[in-house]
Amino acid sequence: MNTLYGLSAVKGFRFAAIEAGIRYENRLDLSLIAADFDCVASGVFTTNKICAAPVRLSRSRINNPIRGIIINATNANACTGEEGLRNAMAITKSTAEALKVSETSILAASTGIIGVQLPCEKIVKAIPSLVNSLSRENGSLIARAIMTTDTVPKESSMRFTCFRGDFIIAGIAKGAGMIAPNMATLLVFLITDAPVAKNELDTIFSRCIDKSLNAITIDGDMSTNDTAIILSPEAEHQLTGKDLLVFEETLLAVLTDLAEKLVMDAEGATKLVRIFVKGARDDADARKIARAVSNSLLVKTALFGMDPNWGRIACAAGYSGAEVSEEQLSISFGDLCLLQNGVPQNPSREEMVRAMHEREIQITIDAGMGNGTFRFLTSDISYEYVKINAEYST
Amino acid sequence: MNTLYGLSAVKGFRFAAIEAGIRYENRLDLSLIAADFDCVASGVFTTNKICAAPVRLSRSRINNPIRGIIINATNANACTGEEGLRNAMAITKSTAEALKVSETSILAASTGIIGVQLPCEKIVKAIPSLVNSLSRENGSLIARAIMTTDTVPKESSMRFTCFRGDFIIAGIAKGAGMIAPNMATLLVFLITDAPVAKNELDTIFSRCIDKSLNAITIDGDMSTNDTAIILSPEAEHQLTGKDLLVFEETLLAVLTDLAEKLVMDAEGATKLVRIFVKGARDDADARKIARAVSNSLLVKTALFGMDPNWGRIACAAGYSGAEVSEEQLSISFGDLCLLQNGVPQNPSREEMVRAMHEREIQITIDAGMGNGTFRFLTSDISYEYVKINAEYST
Repeated sequence: MNTLYGLSAVKGFRFAAIEAGIRYENRLDLSLIAADFDCVASGVFTTNKICAAPVRLSRSRINNPIRGIIINATNANACTGEEGLRNAMAITKSTAEALKVSETSILAASTGIIGVQLPCEKIVKAIPSLVNSLSRENGSLIARAIMTTDTVPKESSMRFTCFRGDFIIAGIAKGAGMIAPNMATLLVFLITDAPVAKNELDTIFSRCIDKSLNAITIDGDMSTNDTAIILSPEAEHQLTGKDLLVFEETLLAVLTDLAEKLVMDAEGATKLVRIFVKGARDDADARKIARAVSNSLLVKTALFGMDPNWGRIACAAGYSGAEVSEEQLSISFGDLCLLQNGVPQNPSREEMVRAMHEREIQITIDAGMGNGTFRFLTSDISYEYVKINAEYST
Repeated sequence: MNTLYGLSAVKGFRFAAIEAGIRYENRLDLSLIAADFDCVASGVFTTNKICAAPVRLSRSRINNPIRGIIINATNANACTGEEGLRNAMAITKSTAEALKVSETSILAASTGIIGVQLPCEKIVKAIPSLVNSLSRENGSLIARAIMTTDTVPKESSMRFTCFRGDFIIAGIAKGAGMIAPNMATLLVFLITDAPVAKNELDTIFSRCIDKSLNAITIDGDMSTNDTAIILSPEAEHQLTGKDLLVFEETLLAVLTDLAEKLVMDAEGATKLVRIFVKGARDDADARKIARAVSNSLLVKTALFGMDPNWGRIACAAGYSGAEVSEEQLSISFGDLCLLQNGVPQNPSREEMVRAMHEREIQITIDAGMGNGTFRFLTSDISYEYVKINAEYST
């Protein structure tokens, strides 16, 4: 059993994924994460006012004892009205029946096309065989079964040791859209064998999401279906004190790893770009600058063109809403300084070419006015991005 | 003289444009609009905290009596610090000397690459010949000389008759970037022979800009160099009462025409898309929805792919910040309804193909909850857009 990794490494959980033919034939599209015991769950959901039926359902059940999460790809079950909600409920009901657990202990998530009703009957019919194929070894199937335009499954797990013992946190993610401000759905599911009290888990989870998934210009606000859920076993004796700090550190590391994998696989991207802002008036201002630069289409196309166009970065910083002043602004690509306190530097063409041809680039923006820092991850935008999104059709 | 059109149709103004070799040889890059008398000027400038030297200079002089505007293309004179400001001042000073008017009566505007110093000496040397070539007939040269990635010059003029007599308003514009949130510089210059008092002109101009240039997702906030200026002759007897209403109506019509021309020429665009929001809680909410949909990369790429993906539109409406509810939302492409009160309609494939193949498309979004309306213009995003912006290099 030592060879199990990813989700499968976490004791007490079983997994299954099948081809239910929801929208296409011959692809895994229906999957289930099942716990052998009641779990404490925390969830971070889209704040989009138009949100999918499974989001509404899961949000209403997130404080219950949870036994499973049923996930379908290829159809978002969003903008599907009452019928969509009834379908989501019917699917979780069938899952609960097959698992012999309470209906309200099942959460749901969907990703795919918006505005098309799920083939509910087909899915309900497939659920018994889904449940029958549950096995601890199937963990890695889930990461594959939730993919849409992702090119690789994304999975991460880390062990930690604390006063109470050895534990593991494992997670999977999908979401290869350009990510915010116009993201494709982001789905993240994490499980752990570390018992954490509900209130602690809620606080820690949202704090970690903020520093990881919300720092890749993935914005909880945006898609209709964004969902991040973590399950931790209900237990009498939960982690406390310093153990919780170790838990949080490990959870942040797993989420950061998933966040990097998401950006690495951004649709059509050729570069992973770390935007590091320092010297801002405060951390909130640093985040504003980092976000504006990360989201700038002109910056992203310049990165694709391998053009160290720091002017576009200064421009984005200027409209970010943060306090910035031209005279105090410095910008570097890697260790190559292009703007120093508002004065353009003139590195040689060779130095610039070298800096821009890396697969991973760090851009450092120093606002020169305080101690605020923030890191964002972003990617370039390529022909391929336009192609993918022009052709991903209704 | 009846054959004069555009800027040249406005009495009392003269124009010149020359090849000064600012960044490239053999292209018009330096131009001048000169008034034969003192003018009242109104200006709307970028609110970007990083703003170009000519913006700072023009903003500081906008309340003076104005005699001319000197404009250069190919270099934005932005992020150029003190030296940039000194250069802008030197250029307006030379222009004033050659025109034999006060230095502070000359405004300046620039567009082009950020962070590179202007070849100031070269420009100053070229100014006498620029001034020597001033002529009323040269109006159409200006629209051409201020272009960057624009593919066509943009000019518009309209006559109006009011109690005080017959007048004309003429304007030119450039700015073919994707426009906000990441626009290339927008420059708009208007002249009129209608005398309007400074305070009236300021109010009317900013109101008209808000309904035209600010409704094409061109955001005054964004570029470092955005500048819109209107000149009206100083006079003892200015337009009053209903005459001002006719003036405002005409000005809005000219600005709207320029705005449409800007979107039609958006970089790499293949479609002109009118986003009409109605039924919002109020006009402010309608604007939020229209702006979010207009700026959505996923909507824009779907339009390029001729995919009537109303799900992406609903999604953008949901995160716009406006009050929206799935159950009350309706979306149409042209007269083809795709979503009616939250219920997906299923027009035939042929109907959808027909609706999407038009060069101009109107998308109507009915929020179904009030009387708020707003119109935005946008365009699709194509491979060509990425190409242009990846290759427009430092």
